[in-house]
Amino acid sequence: MQMHNFNSGPSILPEKVLQQVAASIIDFNNIGLSILEIGHRSTWFEAVLAEAKQLIKQIMQLNDDYEVLFLHGGATTQFLEVPMNLLPANGTAVYFDNGIWGKKAIKEASHFGKVHVAASSADKGHTYINKNYTIPTDAAYLHLTSNNTVEGTQWHQFPTTNVPMVVDMSSDIFSKQEQFSQFKLIYAGAQKNIGAAGVTLVVVHKSILGKVDRYLPPMLDYQQHIANGSMINTPPVISVYITLLTLRWIIEEGGLAEMERRAIERSRLLYSALDSLPLFVPTVAREDRSHMNAVFTLTTTALENEFLAACKQHGMVGIKGHRSVGGLRASMYNAMPLSSVQALVALMTEFNNKHYNN
Amino acid sequence: MQMHNFNSGPSILPEKVLQQVAASIIDFNNIGLSILEIGHRSTWFEAVLAEAKQLIKQIMQLNDDYEVLFLHGGATTQFLEVPMNLLPANGTAVYFDNGIWGKKAIKEASHFGKVHVAASSADKGHTYINKNYTIPTDAAYLHLTSNNTVEGTQWHQFPTTNVPMVVDMSSDIFSKQEQFSQFKLIYAGAQKNIGAAGVTLVVVHKSILGKVDRYLPPMLDYQQHIANGSMINTPPVISVYITLLTLRWIIEEGGLAEMERRAIERSRLLYSALDSLPLFVPTVAREDRSHMNAVFTLTTTALENEFLAACKQHGMVGIKGHRSVGGLRASMYNAMPLSSVQALVALMTEFNNKHYNN
Repeated sequence: MQMHNFNSGPSILPEKVLQQVAASIIDFNNIGLSILEIGHRSTWFEAVLAEAKQLIKQIMQLNDDYEVLFLHGGATTQFLEVPMNLLPANGTAVYFDNGIWGKKAIKEASHFGKVHVAASSADKGHTYINKNYTIPTDAAYLHLTSNNTVEGTQWHQFPTTNVPMVVDMSSDIFSKQEQFSQFKLIYAGAQKNIGAAGVTLVVVHKSILGKVDRYLPPMLDYQQHIANGSMINTPPVISVYITLLTLRWIIEEGGLAEMERRAIERSRLLYSALDSLPLFVPTVAREDRSHMNAVFTLTTTALENEFLAACKQHGMVGIKGHRSVGGLRASMYNAMPLSSVQALVALMTEFNNKHYNN
Repeated sequence: MQMHNFNSGPSILPEKVLQQVAASIIDFNNIGLSILEIGHRSTWFEAVLAEAKQLIKQIMQLNDDYEVLFLHGGATTQFLEVPMNLLPANGTAVYFDNGIWGKKAIKEASHFGKVHVAASSADKGHTYINKNYTIPTDAAYLHLTSNNTVEGTQWHQFPTTNVPMVVDMSSDIFSKQEQFSQFKLIYAGAQKNIGAAGVTLVVVHKSILGKVDRYLPPMLDYQQHIANGSMINTPPVISVYITLLTLRWIIEEGGLAEMERRAIERSRLLYSALDSLPLFVPTVAREDRSHMNAVFTLTTTALENEFLAACKQHGMVGIKGHRSVGGLRASMYNAMPLSSVQALVALMTEFNNKHYNN
């Protein structure tokens, strides 16, 4: 059966990348050893890491004031590492409360300094991006989540400010063209658009570091990670390698312009079905809809399980909404072919016509 | 060319495990999706995690007072997490200074409380295990490194004490039979004997937790990891899966008794060559020699590069010593066949006879 992978992350990867990973598990670059069996300080892995860093810089069009790190711990560890490194004990950080990940980041930051929540969309269950905010000019930094994986909202225009901007791009990085230099720190768990679980990309402008007095343990200190080239200890070798292959694939396919074109094409098709089929209800404010994660419900919620069963029968996985919000969700990351969204829309249409009797 | 993988970590894995990993990258358990593409909260991955935990308990013969965790961050993050969770600000922890990893653990712990170094082998460049120690009975815990990967020493008899023992077993875990219940916390980066880089095993007796007052960030809090079943955030899925396959392999091959038999057979063969070939000099005190990592030099150090070149020519990788100590090192983890050690010994003998003219 042809599978259609709508998982929210870990999620779909390009078929070509999977083939390359599988081959390298047996024999990496014809050296007679598995990628899993080579030392992280071998010239083999050093070349992997160097190329991955270089491709990140190239895709992001960033200069050498930025450093590229590949770290352990997932984006959740960045919720901790960001305030530890950037928020002086007597300083203030600006956060946005537009979803579950932003809330977790706020909670963590509040242990290190003062957190000013510039705007919250909690009043409507985080179904929109609250753009009614002012940013204190003396803040140490501003933190936002570019795409809310769980709630299905996305920033389509970022704030303009002189305060250094930190962005959690875990679920929409490299899905569209972006002025990355507007940010001073960008982080993203790899397991949606740039690889598999186990590695986190951090890109940081060096000018914002070294301004806090607290003790920073080596594994949580950006400056030490930079000084050690992401190798304070053994990095997650296979996950870094999968990211490299995914970056190569993005470039080969046409780069961010092409990723953006595909994301718009996929999401337009799906939202158009959600808007036109009366059984299906998109839950997010139209202007804030995510191009990565479409969240929706059924007007007859009792039918949700039946719809999920139909999805399963048609090889469509990952349609169930996040346990914190319920409902349904279709995630459409870079590697998703348009044909999978077409298949989902066809099934939705059929299901709508079967069950919606007005 | 037949390769012989003496890497110190990441290092050799069983051929069968590599084949299974490669297959699962294309299609995991015939579900039509890659192991890299499934959600970490899917029943598929939940089964992987549950089996891995159960096999750890089975191999270690531990009761339910112990919890098994699979964490991000490597053993180096445990250097931080152990004192954060176990060392009260006014308490004392006992550490052993027998090598580079113990030293790093000491440095990190000293930021959280008082560290009492019970014994050090720094006087002889960490070429032995200093067993001349007394352990303060009121210490919060005792920490030791069971095997010193870099220096090639190994504890063959652990201290006897009522103080809770914490052990970094990164480089010799599951290479021999052990009374694991003598420890209250065992941790190990997976990339030597139990899998690939990217995941760290932590096994902890619950009785030692909850005794410090400081703020513990979720990602560094054993109790929160336990409460969330190692899934506070997305775990390193592929690395956990590789560990599961490696654990299955250990059991299929005959368990720890068989791993121990093989380790002794391999290391006896190599040390016997080091003892008998005059060109080669084992650097470690005989009684403390590691069965995992044999460290040595050449009487004529000028010949080291030539020997390394000969190794390379014969497909033997990883023989160069750690950059901090120099010299040569052969690591012989669980997956290494005796034939690789036989090949190395044959080459050493040939090299000795060619160059040692007395």
